[in-house]
Amino acid sequence: SDGTVGANKNAIKIIGDNTDLYAQGYFSYDSKKSGGVTISHLRFGKKPIKSTYLIEEADFVACHKQSYVYQYDLLKGLKKGGTFLLNCRWSDDELEENLPASLKKYIADNEIKFYTMNATDIAAEIGLGNRINMIMQAAFFALAEVIPLQDAIKYLEEAIRSSYEKKGEAIVQMNNIAVQRGVESLVKIDVPASWSMATEQEMENSEKEVPDFIKNVLIPMSKQEGDTLPVSTFIGAEDGTFPMGTAAYEKRAIATNIPEWEMDTCIQCNQCSFVCPHAAIRPFLMNEEEVENAPVAFAGKKAIGKGFEGLSYRIQVSPLDCTGCGVCVDVCPAKEKALIMKPLEEQTEEQVPNWEYAMTLPVRDQIMSLNTVKGSQFSQPLLEFSGACAGCGETPYTKVLTQLFGDRMMIANATGCSSIWGASAPATPYCTNAQGKGPAWANSLFEDNAEYGYGMATAMKQIRSRLTDIMEEALTLDIPESHQEALKSWLEGKEDADASKAATEKILSLLQVELEDPKAKELLVEIADKKDFLIKKSMWIIGGDGWAYDIDYGGLDHVLASGENVNVLVYDTEIYSNTGGQSSKATPIGAVAKFASSGKRTKKKDLGLLFTNYGYVYVAQVSMGANQAQFLKAIKEAEKYDGPSIIIAYAPCISHGYKGGMGKSQSYAKEAVESGYWHLFRYNPELKDKGKNPFVLDSKKPTASFKDFLMEQVRYSSLLKEFPETAEELFAKAEVDATEKYEKYLEMSQ
Amino acid sequence: SDGTVGANKNAIKIIGDNTDLYAQGYFSYDSKKSGGVTISHLRFGKKPIKSTYLIEEADFVACHKQSYVYQYDLLKGLKKGGTFLLNCRWSDDELEENLPASLKKYIADNEIKFYTMNATDIAAEIGLGNRINMIMQAAFFALAEVIPLQDAIKYLEEAIRSSYEKKGEAIVQMNNIAVQRGVESLVKIDVPASWSMATEQEMENSEKEVPDFIKNVLIPMSKQEGDTLPVSTFIGAEDGTFPMGTAAYEKRAIATNIPEWEMDTCIQCNQCSFVCPHAAIRPFLMNEEEVENAPVAFAGKKAIGKGFEGLSYRIQVSPLDCTGCGVCVDVCPAKEKALIMKPLEEQTEEQVPNWEYAMTLPVRDQIMSLNTVKGSQFSQPLLEFSGACAGCGETPYTKVLTQLFGDRMMIANATGCSSIWGASAPATPYCTNAQGKGPAWANSLFEDNAEYGYGMATAMKQIRSRLTDIMEEALTLDIPESHQEALKSWLEGKEDADASKAATEKILSLLQVELEDPKAKELLVEIADKKDFLIKKSMWIIGGDGWAYDIDYGGLDHVLASGENVNVLVYDTEIYSNTGGQSSKATPIGAVAKFASSGKRTKKKDLGLLFTNYGYVYVAQVSMGANQAQFLKAIKEAEKYDGPSIIIAYAPCISHGYKGGMGKSQSYAKEAVESGYWHLFRYNPELKDKGKNPFVLDSKKPTASFKDFLMEQVRYSSLLKEFPETAEELFAKAEVDATEKYEKYLEMSQ
Repeated sequence: SDGTVGANKNAIKIIGDNTDLYAQGYFSYDSKKSGGVTISHLRFGKKPIKSTYLIEEADFVACHKQSYVYQYDLLKGLKKGGTFLLNCRWSDDELEENLPASLKKYIADNEIKFYTMNATDIAAEIGLGNRINMIMQAAFFALAEVIPLQDAIKYLEEAIRSSYEKKGEAIVQMNNIAVQRGVESLVKIDVPASWSMATEQEMENSEKEVPDFIKNVLIPMSKQEGDTLPVSTFIGAEDGTFPMGTAAYEKRAIATNIPEWEMDTCIQCNQCSFVCPHAAIRPFLMNEEEVENAPVAFAGKKAIGKGFEGLSYRIQVSPLDCTGCGVCVDVCPAKEKALIMKPLEEQTEEQVPNWEYAMTLPVRDQIMSLNTVKGSQFSQPLLEFSGACAGCGETPYTKVLTQLFGDRMMIANATGCSSIWGASAPATPYCTNAQGKGPAWANSLFEDNAEYGYGMATAMKQIRSRLTDIMEEALTLDIPESHQEALKSWLEGKEDADASKAATEKILSLLQVELEDPKAKELLVEIADKKDFLIKKSMWIIGGDGWAYDIDYGGLDHVLASGENVNVLVYDTEIYSNTGGQSSKATPIGAVAKFASSGKRTKKKDLGLLFTNYGYVYVAQVSMGANQAQFLKAIKEAEKYDGPSIIIAYAPCISHGYKGGMGKSQSYAKEAVESGYWHLFRYNPELKDKGKNPFVLDSKKPTASFKDFLMEQVRYSSLLKEFPETAEELFAKAEVDATEKYEKYLEMSQ
Repeated sequence: SDGTVGANKNAIKIIGDNTDLYAQGYFSYDSKKSGGVTISHLRFGKKPIKSTYLIEEADFVACHKQSYVYQYDLLKGLKKGGTFLLNCRWSDDELEENLPASLKKYIADNEIKFYTMNATDIAAEIGLGNRINMIMQAAFFALAEVIPLQDAIKYLEEAIRSSYEKKGEAIVQMNNIAVQRGVESLVKIDVPASWSMATEQEMENSEKEVPDFIKNVLIPMSKQEGDTLPVSTFIGAEDGTFPMGTAAYEKRAIATNIPEWEMDTCIQCNQCSFVCPHAAIRPFLMNEEEVENAPVAFAGKKAIGKGFEGLSYRIQVSPLDCTGCGVCVDVCPAKEKALIMKPLEEQTEEQVPNWEYAMTLPVRDQIMSLNTVKGSQFSQPLLEFSGACAGCGETPYTKVLTQLFGDRMMIANATGCSSIWGASAPATPYCTNAQGKGPAWANSLFEDNAEYGYGMATAMKQIRSRLTDIMEEALTLDIPESHQEALKSWLEGKEDADASKAATEKILSLLQVELEDPKAKELLVEIADKKDFLIKKSMWIIGGDGWAYDIDYGGLDHVLASGENVNVLVYDTEIYSNTGGQSSKATPIGAVAKFASSGKRTKKKDLGLLFTNYGYVYVAQVSMGANQAQFLKAIKEAEKYDGPSIIIAYAPCISHGYKGGMGKSQSYAKEAVESGYWHLFRYNPELKDKGKNPFVLDSKKPTASFKDFLMEQVRYSSLLKEFPETAEELFAKAEVDATEKYEKYLEMSQ
C-alpha cells in the first residue's frame, strides 16, 4: 500500500467509493478551534490495508499553509522520488529566499518532485474566502495519479453537488471552478542543484529567553513533537497544574489579513477591543515620555475624555496573535472605518517593535470607570490569544469578565468549546497581571461543573470563615495598634472587593513583623498560610448551553437553588458546538442540528425564565452585539449580588452558518435582538427587596424581520431547501414562540 | 460478653453512656415500612467486645409482638436459664392455649425464666397509642439487671427529657409513666412441668396449596430464614424477574384494631376504599345467587345507583392485610360513621370465610364509569397490601392508577419509599387481574428513573411501529377477510386503549389459523412474538420529590422536554422520606429536616410551574384528601394526553409528624389546601390548542389558617420550640411564599 500525508480527507472517500482500490485514512488533529493543524494520513492500494499506525514513509506530501515550512518538519518520511505540494504565495525568487535550508536540501537530496500553487489567492478570487480545500484536493488528484484525472474531476463534481446543493447553486459552481483551477494552477519547480548545499543561516532574534515550561513543553508540543517528550519533563507538575499565559508564546500567525489602525478616523470608542475574541487589538495610553521613547511607527493621537489630558491614545494590534476575523472592522462605528484589513505580511513592524513596545507600557485602568465600554478596555485582559474560532461569539464575553474581575476570579469551567479554547494543553490564554494575579481556572467534567464550582465556593467560604475567626481571636490578644487596625479593616471590608484588597495589602505588609504574644504569632502564621483568600473572590461557573440546558441542568438548578453566592455564565450557541453540532434544549424549533436533521420539533427551553421562579436568583439574558452596556451592567450586578446569579449570553457560532461569515458575528448578535429572535432582560432580586419590579426588559419591540434573520443562517436556510413545507411550518412556530416569549417578558416587566 | 436479642436499641446507649460496661449493638431490619421486623442484638460486658457477628447464644430475649410466636423461631439460641419476655394480651389460660408447643417445650426444657406483659394495652391506656418501646425498655432494665434498676430509671427519664422535650411536656410525662408501668407490670409465669411434653397439634387449613415461589422463597424469607436459601432456589429467575402479587401471601396481621363495617349507616360512597393505602377495604357487588351462596356473616345491603338494580352491596375488610391506620374511618362521610375500629382478634371471620368469599366474586367494573370516585372502586386494585407505613399518603394515589390503567401499565420507579413498598424482595404488592394482566414494574437507579422510563417508552414505540409495518404489509397480501378486518381495526385503533384491546382480542383469536401465503404466515408469527405490545400501553414514571426535584431533575426535564408520551407521578412528601428525612428542594421554608435542622432557609421549588413553561407538557398538582375528583380528572387527562405529563401529588408522610397521627393523613391533605399551603391546578396544553387558557386553578382562596396547619406538624412546631424567633420569621416567609404562589396561579388562570 502507498502512503500519502496531508491530502484532504474527502479524497479518500472518492477513491474508496469509485475505484477498486482499498483505502484508509487516519486523521490527526490538534484541538485549536482556529488555525489548528490536521495531518491526514491516507493509504491506497490493490491489497487490503492492515496498517494500524500512522504513515512513516510517504509517496506524497501536501502542505496547505505557507508558514508551516518554518514550524514543522514537513518532509520527514517522504520517500526518495516522492511528490511535495506546497500552497504558497511565493514567486520563484521568493521561494529561493524564504524556504528553509533543511527543506531545500531534503528536496534536492531526495529527488523530490516539488510543486507549488497559490490556492489562497485563487480561493479569494473565486469567492471561496479562505476555503482552499477543494483547490488542494483537485491538485492532489492531478499529481498523485491514483485514478485518471478526468474520472477524479467527475467524482469531485458529484461530491460537490451532493454536499453543497443544499447551500445553493452559487456555492456548487464556485467549488466546480475551484476544482478546475486546482488542476490548472500547479507550478512545477525546477529544483536547483544548489539546494543540496543549502545551509541554515544564523537565526536572529528568535532565540529569546523564555521560561523553562515554554522551552521544554510548549515549543515541542506546538511542533507536533509532544509524543517524544519523556515523563521526566513534567517533574514538578505532578498535580496537573499548568503555568498561565502560555498561549502568548505561541504567536501562531494564522491570519491572512489583519486590521490596520487608521489613526485619523478613529473616534477612540474602544469597541474594536471590546469585541475582539482574541484580545489581539487593544487601546494604549502614553504619557509624553513614553511617546518620546516609542518606536517611530508607534504613533498616537491626543487622547480624548475627562482625565486623559496630556496622554496619547493608540490602538495596537498583535499581528501574530490575530486570527484575521475582521469583527473589529465590522463593529467600528467611525464614519470612515478606522480599521482596514491588510495582508499579514505587510504588517510585520506592528509586531516588532510596536506590539512589543505596547507591552511595556503601564496599564492605565484607574482613569475611567471600568463600568463603561470604553473604560473597561483600558484594563488588561487576562484572557489573551485564545485558540477559539476566528470571530468566536464566546470569548469576548469572558475577556471582558477578566478585565473586570480577573485578578480575583476563580473559574469552574464545563467541558465544551470553552474548555478547549480555555486550556488545551500546553497553551492556556488565561494569564496574570503585573502583580502575578489572574483567574484560577479548572475543568472537571461536562456533567458536574455547577457542583464543582459550588465546591470551590464552599471551600473558599470555609477558609475565609476560618480567617475571620483568626482575626477576631487575634484582636482579643495584645497586638500592636497597626495590626489591630489592619485586622479590623479586613473584618469590616472582607466582603467588598476594593476594601478587602486595601486591607489585604495592610495585612501582608505586617506579616513579617515578629510579635511577642506566642498565640498571636501562631495566628499570624495561619493568616500567612491562607493569604490567597484574604481578597474577596469572584466565583464564576462557566459553560455552554449543552452543559447548562441539558447535561448538568440538574446540578445547575441545585446550586442556584442553594442560595450560595456564585456567578454562572452560559454561552448560548443553541447547539453542542464542541462535539460537532448536536441539538440541545437550547436549540430553537426549526433549526437543523445533529439529532434534529429535519429541523428541531420542540421549542427552545427558556432557561432564564425558569430561574426567575426562585425569586432569589439574579438572572440576565444578554447579547454583546446588541447592547454592550447592558451586558456590562448585567455582569456588574450579578457579581455584586450576594446570592446566586446566572447570565445567559447569545453566542454566535461558526456552526450557525452565517452567510456573512463570523467576521460579522457581532452584527448577527445585534440582528438576533432586533428581529425578536433573542431578548435582553435582567431579573434582580434586590429590586424586589426595594419594592420594585425585579424584572427589567432591556430590549425593545422587534423591528427587523424574524424570517430574514433565520434565512441568513445555514442552520435554518438548509431546512427550507430540503423540506420546504416543514420549514415554513416550523419557522412560523418559531416566530410565534419568540413573539409569545417577548409578550410574556413585557408583561413581567410591567 | 453477654448476649441479648430483641431489646430496644436506646437501652444500649443508656448503658454505654452511664456505666463502665462495654456495649455493642447490631440491628437487623427488614424493609417493611409498617409492621416490619427489627432484631436488636445487644452485647454488654466488662471486657472490650470484639464480636463482629450477630448473637448466636443469648441470655435474654424479648418479643414485642404477640403474633411473632407463630411466625419466628423466637428462642433459637436462648441460653439455659436465660430470660424470655413476651409482650402479649393473653391471660394465663390463653397463654396455655395459644403458645405454640415448640415454644413451651423450649421454655420448660431449658429452665427459661418466662415473663409476660401487656404493653399494648398499657400504651393505649396512657395515651402512647401503639408505641410500646418505652414500656418494653423499662421492663428490659427491670429483668436484665445490667445496671441497678433505680439508676436505669433515672437514665431513662433523662433520655426521655432530652428526646421529647421539643415535642412538649405532655409527651415527656407520658413516657415517664410508661417507664413506671413497664417496671410494675411484669408478670412472672410459673412454667408448668407439662410444657416439656407439649406437642404440636395437627395444623388445620394452613397448609394450603401455594405456588412454588411462595413456598420456596417468600415463606422462608418472611420467617427471617432467607440467608439459608441456596442459590439453586433461584434457578429460573436468573434475569431478576420476580412473580407478581406475592404480598397477598404474607397476611402479616400487623394491625391491633381494624375497621368493622356498619352496614346500616353506610351510604355506599366507596371513599373508604378510595383512600385505603393498602387496598385492604373494598366494595363488592353480588347478584342473588352470590348472596345465597355467601357465608352467613357475609351480609350485604341493596346496592343504590343506576345500573345496580338487583345487586347487593358490601364493604369487606381483609383483617390480616389491614395495618389498622384508620384512614378509612376518618374519611367516612356518613352522618354516623359506617366504620368502627375493633380489635383484630374479634374480626377473625372477616378473613375466613368473608374475605376469601369476596375474592371469588366477579369484578363488576363495567356498570359505573371508572371516572368517578365511586365507580373507580369497583375496579380491581392491582396494588394490594403494600408494606407502606400505616396511613401512607403515597400508595392511595398509585392504587387508583392501577384501578384505571393497571392492566396495560408499565412503571419505571425511582428509588425511594415507592421502590420499597413497591417491590422489596420477596414480596411485591403489584398484582395481576383474572386475565393475568397487571403493571410491569421495574426500578433502576435513583438518578436515572426518568431516562429509564423514557427508554421503556421508546422501546415500546419502536416495537409497535414495527407491528404497524407488519400489519400494513400483511394487508397487501392474500389473507382472509377476517384477518383483514382484524388488522385494519388494530391499525385504526392502536393509539386508543379500548379500541386496541378489542382489536387485539380479534387478532389473538386468529393467530392459530394456518395461512397459505408463506409471507403472511411469517408476518403472523412475528405478530405473535410481539403480542404483548398490541394493546396500547400506559407508561408511568414514578418517584418521590427527592427524585423529581433533586437527584434526577435534569433527566426528568430532558424527558418531559422531549415531547414523548410518558406520564410522571411525583409523590411530594417534601422530604427524602425513605433515607430518613433529608431536606430536598421540595422542602418548604421553615421546615425542619436533616441538613436543615434549624429550619430550611430557601423556599420550595415550584416544580409544576417550571414545567408549564414548556407549553406542551401536561402538568397537574393534586391532593387526594382535598379533592378526590380533581385527582381522578388529572390522571385521566394526563394519561390521555398524547405528550408528556407530570402530576405532583401532595403526600402526607409519617416524617411530617402530624399531631393527629397518620390515621388522619387524608384530613391533613385537605387542610393543606384549605390553609393555602398546597394548591390544586391543571395545565392542559390541549386547551391552548382550542384557544382556551390551558391553566385551570382547581383550589379556592384559602379559608383556614396557614400557621395552624404548620403547628399541627412536628417538622414545624419543633422549630418554634427550639428557635422561636427564627421560626416566626421563617413561618411568616413561608406564608408569604404560599400567598404569592396562589396569586400567581390565580393570575395565570384568568
